[in-house]
Amino acid sequence: MKKWLLTAAIAASFTAQADEGMWQPHQLPAMADMLKEKGLEIDAKSISKLTEFPMNAVISLGGCTASFVSPKGLVVTNHHCAYGSIQYNSTPEKNLLKDGFLAKTYKEELPATPGSRVYVTEAVTDVTSKVTSGQMGKVGNDFYAGIEQQEKALVAECEKDAGYRCQVYSFHGGLEYYLVKQLEIRDVRLTYNPAGSVGKYGGDIDNWMWPRHTGDFSFYRAYVGKDGKPADFHEDNVPYEPKSFLKVSAKGVSDGDFVMVAGYPGRTNRYRTANEVENQFEWAYPEGKVLRERLIEIIKDTAPEGSDERIKYESAIAGLANYAKNFTSMIEFYGKSTMLDDRKSLEQKLAKWIKADKKRQSKYGEVLVQLDKLIAKGEEGQERDLLMSYMGYSTMINASDSLYRLANEKTLPDMEREPGYQERDMTQFISGMERIERRYAASVDKAMLADLIIKYAALPSDQRLAAFDKAFGIDNNFDQAKLIKTLDTMYANTTLSDKETRMAWIDKSVADFKKSNDPFIQYAVSTYEERMAREKARKQLAGDLMKVRPQYMDAIIAYNRELGKPVYADANSSLRVSVGNVKGYSPQDGLVAVPFTRLEGIVAKDTGVDPFDAPAKQLALIKQKQYGDYYVKSIDSVPVNFLSTLDTTGGNSGSPTLNGRAELVGLLFDGVYESIIGDWGYDDQSNRSIQVDSRYMLWVMEHLDNADNLLAEMEIVK
Amino acid sequence: MKKWLLTAAIAASFTAQADEGMWQPHQLPAMADMLKEKGLEIDAKSISKLTEFPMNAVISLGGCTASFVSPKGLVVTNHHCAYGSIQYNSTPEKNLLKDGFLAKTYKEELPATPGSRVYVTEAVTDVTSKVTSGQMGKVGNDFYAGIEQQEKALVAECEKDAGYRCQVYSFHGGLEYYLVKQLEIRDVRLTYNPAGSVGKYGGDIDNWMWPRHTGDFSFYRAYVGKDGKPADFHEDNVPYEPKSFLKVSAKGVSDGDFVMVAGYPGRTNRYRTANEVENQFEWAYPEGKVLRERLIEIIKDTAPEGSDERIKYESAIAGLANYAKNFTSMIEFYGKSTMLDDRKSLEQKLAKWIKADKKRQSKYGEVLVQLDKLIAKGEEGQERDLLMSYMGYSTMINASDSLYRLANEKTLPDMEREPGYQERDMTQFISGMERIERRYAASVDKAMLADLIIKYAALPSDQRLAAFDKAFGIDNNFDQAKLIKTLDTMYANTTLSDKETRMAWIDKSVADFKKSNDPFIQYAVSTYEERMAREKARKQLAGDLMKVRPQYMDAIIAYNRELGKPVYADANSSLRVSVGNVKGYSPQDGLVAVPFTRLEGIVAKDTGVDPFDAPAKQLALIKQKQYGDYYVKSIDSVPVNFLSTLDTTGGNSGSPTLNGRAELVGLLFDGVYESIIGDWGYDDQSNRSIQVDSRYMLWVMEHLDNADNLLAEMEIVK
Repeated sequence: MKKWLLTAAIAASFTAQADEGMWQPHQLPAMADMLKEKGLEIDAKSISKLTEFPMNAVISLGGCTASFVSPKGLVVTNHHCAYGSIQYNSTPEKNLLKDGFLAKTYKEELPATPGSRVYVTEAVTDVTSKVTSGQMGKVGNDFYAGIEQQEKALVAECEKDAGYRCQVYSFHGGLEYYLVKQLEIRDVRLTYNPAGSVGKYGGDIDNWMWPRHTGDFSFYRAYVGKDGKPADFHEDNVPYEPKSFLKVSAKGVSDGDFVMVAGYPGRTNRYRTANEVENQFEWAYPEGKVLRERLIEIIKDTAPEGSDERIKYESAIAGLANYAKNFTSMIEFYGKSTMLDDRKSLEQKLAKWIKADKKRQSKYGEVLVQLDKLIAKGEEGQERDLLMSYMGYSTMINASDSLYRLANEKTLPDMEREPGYQERDMTQFISGMERIERRYAASVDKAMLADLIIKYAALPSDQRLAAFDKAFGIDNNFDQAKLIKTLDTMYANTTLSDKETRMAWIDKSVADFKKSNDPFIQYAVSTYEERMAREKARKQLAGDLMKVRPQYMDAIIAYNRELGKPVYADANSSLRVSVGNVKGYSPQDGLVAVPFTRLEGIVAKDTGVDPFDAPAKQLALIKQKQYGDYYVKSIDSVPVNFLSTLDTTGGNSGSPTLNGRAELVGLLFDGVYESIIGDWGYDDQSNRSIQVDSRYMLWVMEHLDNADNLLAEMEIVK
Repeated sequence: MKKWLLTAAIAASFTAQADEGMWQPHQLPAMADMLKEKGLEIDAKSISKLTEFPMNAVISLGGCTASFVSPKGLVVTNHHCAYGSIQYNSTPEKNLLKDGFLAKTYKEELPATPGSRVYVTEAVTDVTSKVTSGQMGKVGNDFYAGIEQQEKALVAECEKDAGYRCQVYSFHGGLEYYLVKQLEIRDVRLTYNPAGSVGKYGGDIDNWMWPRHTGDFSFYRAYVGKDGKPADFHEDNVPYEPKSFLKVSAKGVSDGDFVMVAGYPGRTNRYRTANEVENQFEWAYPEGKVLRERLIEIIKDTAPEGSDERIKYESAIAGLANYAKNFTSMIEFYGKSTMLDDRKSLEQKLAKWIKADKKRQSKYGEVLVQLDKLIAKGEEGQERDLLMSYMGYSTMINASDSLYRLANEKTLPDMEREPGYQERDMTQFISGMERIERRYAASVDKAMLADLIIKYAALPSDQRLAAFDKAFGIDNNFDQAKLIKTLDTMYANTTLSDKETRMAWIDKSVADFKKSNDPFIQYAVSTYEERMAREKARKQLAGDLMKVRPQYMDAIIAYNRELGKPVYADANSSLRVSVGNVKGYSPQDGLVAVPFTRLEGIVAKDTGVDPFDAPAKQLALIKQKQYGDYYVKSIDSVPVNFLSTLDTTGGNSGSPTLNGRAELVGLLFDGVYESIIGDWGYDDQSNRSIQVDSRYMLWVMEHLDNADNLLAEMEIVK
């Protein structure tokens, strides 16, 4: 609660201060003195080199981060990052999610869920001039398409090297472009996960909360062909031998210690304008929260607890709830903050700085005005756009749209297709279509869609879309009962829910779609042109933004350069390094969150009922004070989770938290509730990341799960 | 949550350790060295003398504690203790509850709510031998009646001194008796209270919670006749001049400082047997919680928010909710505790100690067995007794029972009447009957009674009561619809709800009652004998317990004496002193409650909506950092509330918390949620009292409410 009140730290959000910053590795050598002073013992230069220790041990799972912790391709990440694979291998008879899993030998290891990947970043190349070359004269959609074309070409060239996945990342809204080349390991296996009552102890209740007692870790192993190259799953494959791996510390860290984290943070919005902040917090988050809570309500009403349908939608509920809670926090702390005023005053300062110099004036003079004009344009029709985007929660809408889009894209040469529909995307596309089998129930899908269309139908007619209206029989005299009847018929007659039928559409032509009697295929066909027109308009705007926002960021960087402050780019899922300290915080006046939780806290929280149902053996071990080698005198116990000032966000999950010697001292898995708004501005007082302590991980492995084989395989620093 | 898990402190609950103990003042001189070492600067002997400073400045309001803070009878207590008087003087036009009130002169002071009293304890005399003289040969009801008779005689003798109220208090279950003589000041006036949004900031949400930011203080003034003797309200009355008064500290206390509190704690159960603990926590609290929550539900359903009925029942809801929350905490922390096992092991140790010595064996050998036998007997029919006791929430049941009881008691000489029905009790009795006017709605009363009778009707027939059954037409083929019809008729026809009619019954005879057609009077008459028989059985058991429990306590005291430990008696609403320190605690693993909250915490909690709607002026003052003379560097603000280890319970509300020089540094007003179970056993780790800091009180008076006249009247230590 103190977040914005006690400090004006948010005012500094444009500039790197204290522990704020998600740095690109190449930025680190310039900060070497500061890093050394903070506690970095290894050479700052070494962290900047992606093909050397420790950075080449830090890998991406796509959405999560992980790291190699043995010479034989052993990978550690969060339990929640391996969740899909654990679930995939679970049956009612052999429930790995509930009981945990430990492969004592390579042979016992289980294939991860289809589509699982380990990405090892091998090169990051500045391709700004290549991407923008010849494009700067274009505007709008042409500029957007031109940039996309250049990116695709660079990716295609890069991916000629078999076994690699490449991507161009835009930094500072398009001021810089980097080509990232990653080794793509396709044979990933589940090696070990603790019981769910350890790995997700506290569940959704404790999600984003402190105090925390979650053993959020699991182990994969990366496999390659006998030739050492990435290969599809095969029993002859061998463990991948990484160029380096992280040592795991059994000594851990203490309050105040230096820590750093390397990982793949997803998205932050630290440089958005005041107008964007206002619209997001005063319109988008409140609306999104309401929609999410409503969809959860609908799922729960339609699929009662214990029903088969409910099982299929548990992960949808979790996802909806996760961000409903996130938005709630955003709204709460924005209300208590001076964020908007701070942004406004920063923009005034920037404007004053620009005005003070003629060169600056000619270079940046119109930038903010232009940017705000484009932003305002993007907000036109946003009520409708938000509803349409939430319609993606309807599997029928989503599947029919995607399948018909694919048929259309396939009429183009691969290089001209929309990203997501190229040949390189087909594996993910197909597994997505297969997954529907276990995540779809017509009753729920229909109820959600009906609710969203009813809201859509209440929009002013000039916001509505003619083809969409026609597809669902909507006009100005909207009749809800009639809509329900229409949907009843559509769901009764569609065959998209049948796996074989659905998968067959992947290979069909546009003409096949146009001939179809399937009501959802017909919906997708009849609304396609309209959808494409909207997409084109969005790209038009995006193209314009991609020209203006880099100029704005250029001004911010120049402004800060004069103040002697380096600027980090907003997170964009590319590899970053954050540095900070082990440190508690005050969540509320009169309360202090101390940096470590203890084993005894698990017993204190335990109710015997999920999510507070630790294994009986664990409770007994704790009551017997079986601390083993992991006892820490200052807390008179074994530390379970710890807090740090590390600047992280979603996507950092599973990241190795390292000490000054780059030894793994924890796995980052969450942030505290008060720092959710941190995506929009880091605050020294309340931005805290939550790590599972390496000592707890080792304690569970040794004392609870007897994972001796893995303990022997890893290099443990005692 | 750590309460019972981290420490075995509860095992020591029979003995005084650390800050545990609600001491009788006469016990303090023997503890002088310990008190001095802890930080007491004045002579321990002085605290033991009731007619000297500081004890003669500590007064009782009956249910709350207060203290004199000026030579002109100015009294400070909690806002929630003066609540009734503030409410009594409020009108929609002049809402003192909402806006606060300050009398700038004596003339502007307002009469407190009828029945308000200030009790100044002037003498506490050990009357054990007088009370028990000639009684020890009796048993059961005879013993009970004999003791009661002796007590009444002592009280009557004592109250011959006009203007005094006397009472005999039993200690250690009847091991000792003390006669307490109190000056009874009958003219009490409201002098000053802050706005409700200061005085009850946080309301029910923050009740029993930390962090806390409540300005829970208000001021009364005691008036007496021109002769200096207690008198009824009269405009010629003059401010009472107390023999001494407390100075108020503007310097306050710091973390770790010595504090003590003098007050009138109501009831604790620190010496109950394992069987009593088990029954209370595993039966009585869970049942009571369910009944309370159900009654709240019924009131809310029957009297919708905003209705006139609802206003009448707000205080009933608050009372029910307060203890529903209390019971919830009791149950929660009992579940996490080893309390029952600890009691059992203590009883085993005591038994072993008794067995080890022949003298002890003959003296105490049978005590615990006898005690447990009586306790078991008392639990017979407790389901029924609990339901009957909650029927007291029905005003019609309560009023008709009491009125008919009064008519019966009046046939006896005053000295033989049941306490509560003697002449000395009539003022309270009458004001109770008058109060019904503002607290009764037939619809709610009927709904609550119906629900309780339906539960009662489901009891096994041998538990039910024949006359009660007959009065409400209950038999083994219970028909709910029929009961509702019966109640409809009763409520439609009773005239007890009419104030004049009701008050007239106070003076009527038993014969008048027997002739009455009023359905509730008829109910009271027809069930009277049965009620009296049950009361007699209870007294029979109480008499037996009053003989056995003192022996048990005698054994415990002797056992502890050998260990060199003094024993304090359970709280019984008599004057006690607790000593301790300013200290935080850990409410949960990973969290620390620091001992002080700050002004900024008020702003952080503020939502603008009750109960978090601090006055705009206050919020502005805080934002402007107008700390005045009350700034404390270590917290960079003015402290609002603070935590201490003081051992207190309900009844201590309003108690002056004193520093080592007996200066007022705070007003005790609550305990933390984790220490509610402390009534059954003090725990060093989690028993914390909450005080409003004297510096916050002075800050509000000076900066917010401009109570300069009172600040000038008090002696403030700067």
